[in-house]
Amino acid sequence: MTTMKAAQKRAQAKVEYNAFLAGCPSRQLLDRISNKWVVLILCALGGDNSAGQPGAAHADAPRPMRYSEISRLLAGVSQKMLTQTLRSLEHDGLLTRTVTPTVPVTVSYELTDLGLSLHHMTRGLRNWAQTHMAEVLENRENYDSRTS
Amino acid sequence: MTTMKAAQKRAQAKVEYNAFLAGCPSRQLLDRISNKWVVLILCALGGDNSAGQPGAAHADAPRPMRYSEISRLLAGVSQKMLTQTLRSLEHDGLLTRTVTPTVPVTVSYELTDLGLSLHHMTRGLRNWAQTHMAEVLENRENYDSRTS
Repeated sequence: MTTMKAAQKRAQAKVEYNAFLAGCPSRQLLDRISNKWVVLILCALGGDNSAGQPGAAHADAPRPMRYSEISRLLAGVSQKMLTQTLRSLEHDGLLTRTVTPTVPVTVSYELTDLGLSLHHMTRGLRNWAQTHMAEVLENRENYDSRTS
Repeated sequence: MTTMKAAQKRAQAKVEYNAFLAGCPSRQLLDRISNKWVVLILCALGGDNSAGQPGAAHADAPRPMRYSEISRLLAGVSQKMLTQTLRSLEHDGLLTRTVTPTVPVTVSYELTDLGLSLHHMTRGLRNWAQTHMAEVLENRENYDSRTS
C-alpha cells in the first residue's frame, strides 16, 4: 500500500463525481437542474421576478411564494409540469414546501440554502439568455444567409 | 406623450427580454441552453475535461476539439444528439466548426467569445452538481424516510 501525496488526495477528492461519465450520479443531477423550469422556479423564489414588470418595486431578495404566484409568473407552464418540478426540487432539498391550514389550504415554497447556492447559477443563465438574445438572433441570421 | 425619466428608461432597457414570458425569444434560448449536453459540450470545449482523469495534465484552457474527441468525452451521447446539439450551438454563434481537407476530413469545433461567456455559467452548473452531489443524495434519503 502506497502513501498518497496531498496533491493526489486533493485530485481524488475533486474527481469523485464527474458529470462527463454516463454512470455518475452527478450526470443525472446535472440533467435535472439543466431545465428551463428549474431555472425559472429558482429565479422566481430567488426574487428575480421584478424584471419584466416595469414599475414594480425592486424586489431581488429571496422570498417564499405560493403555488399560484409561481404558476402565474412562469407563463405557459402546465400544472403537471410545475407540480412535478417543485416536487423534484423538494426531494433534492433545494426548496421547502409549507402547508398552512387556512381555508382553503395555503401551500408555499421557499429556497433552502442549497437552493440559494444553485440560484446564483440559474440567475446567471437567465441573465445570459436575456442579455445576449440580440447577439444570438444576429448570429442566426448570418448563419442562415451563409448557408442558404 | 410623457418624457421618460432616466430610471424608467433603464428599467425598460432591462426588461426588453424576459424569460418569464412564454412568448419572449429569451425563453426559447434559455430552453436551448438549459440542456445537459449543451452544458457538457461547453465544458469540454472550455477545457474542463481534465477532471475525472486522475493524473491527466491540468488543462483548463479552452481549445478546439475534434468531433470524435467530444464524442468520447461525453460518454453516452448518441451521434444524432451530439450532431444536432453542435449544429444548434453553431447556429447561435456559440462555436465555430472548421473542416480541414485532410484524408479523412478533419472536423473541429471551437468556442467563440459568446460561447466562452456562456461557458462561465455552464462550468458553474457542472461544478455545482459535482460539488453538491453528496448533499443532494442525503436530502433524498431524508425525504424518502420522512414520506414512507
